[in-house]
Amino acid sequence: MTGKIITISRQFGSGGRTVGREVAEKLGLKCYDSEIIRQIAEESGFSEDYVKENGEYTEGSGLFNNFGPVDFYGRSNRITIWTEQCRIIRKLAHEGPCVIVGRCADYVLRDEADLLRVFVYSDMESRAKRVVNEYGETDEKIEKRLRDKDKRRAAYYEIYTDQKFGDPQNYDLCLNSGTLGIDECVNMIVNLYQKDNK
Amino acid sequence: MTGKIITISRQFGSGGRTVGREVAEKLGLKCYDSEIIRQIAEESGFSEDYVKENGEYTEGSGLFNNFGPVDFYGRSNRITIWTEQCRIIRKLAHEGPCVIVGRCADYVLRDEADLLRVFVYSDMESRAKRVVNEYGETDEKIEKRLRDKDKRRAAYYEIYTDQKFGDPQNYDLCLNSGTLGIDECVNMIVNLYQKDNK
Repeated sequence: MTGKIITISRQFGSGGRTVGREVAEKLGLKCYDSEIIRQIAEESGFSEDYVKENGEYTEGSGLFNNFGPVDFYGRSNRITIWTEQCRIIRKLAHEGPCVIVGRCADYVLRDEADLLRVFVYSDMESRAKRVVNEYGETDEKIEKRLRDKDKRRAAYYEIYTDQKFGDPQNYDLCLNSGTLGIDECVNMIVNLYQKDNK
Repeated sequence: MTGKIITISRQFGSGGRTVGREVAEKLGLKCYDSEIIRQIAEESGFSEDYVKENGEYTEGSGLFNNFGPVDFYGRSNRITIWTEQCRIIRKLAHEGPCVIVGRCADYVLRDEADLLRVFVYSDMESRAKRVVNEYGETDEKIEKRLRDKDKRRAAYYEIYTDQKFGDPQNYDLCLNSGTLGIDECVNMIVNLYQKDNK
């Protein structure tokens, strides 16, 4: 395999997904985001919505909610999704350089690929703005919604990886999309990648 | 005031101080690091070594050790140093664009200057290597020394700023000098700064 794989961890609403897509476009790489969800759904039989919700978030705020329903063999649905997710991420990574957004890919590939591990985050205010623009308003207060998503995504990451979500130590580069702007985040990653792969 | 001020927070042994100096050199800016210590010592009457140790670290691992000896007016020496440190950082910042390494400058200047806030960090192994190269061996085990420094620097930052040391939210950019290398960290900051100040 030549060239690095870029993994993008991101806070909900930080625009990390957009960053991933634009980086991939500029570098002529594939970007895996909803594609992973589609493949997990296909292989596991769960709906895409179910995979989306259970492949990156714990069910509630308590750890005891984490494993949810079990299948015929006593395996939790979440464990099934996690196992499938790991398998698909490894398969995609072995096909060649690409950008993978979310899904703990930085952790899954830590020992088997040359990675550029990026974390995209932002302040509450600019995330709230972006989420309302992208997904529309809901009855729930936007800050509450963000805090709930943060908590559940962090808990998911911590349970499956035994690492702290958003801890700089897990990444090569952490970018504040709220102050730097999406374009600058994209440029920095692209420049770094191009230098590394000269 | 035109142009941003670059603040560099750094983990002990990450090479953040070197990054700061090289960034300043490339941009033709002044870099304030030991200069701040010298000025605090001059104004407060404490020795430079005392200021160095008490202007960025708590005394021991317990919070109760934080304020240490008091002066004639009942003010803790640490509070005196902190107050002087804030005053000098503000004064230097108002003289024009510069690079300030450490000393909670990101927090002190948060409401009064246009900042590019950088955090430089690295993994334990490469920090240990750098510290031994730079400061030599000691009787104390190097990892223990680093962990102790981390704990005391983080406690200091948290007590005086009410923010978490090393939390990406406090910075625009967090760079892993262990995986990116010092030169690349310098380049990224310089490029970003030059774009911002075109």
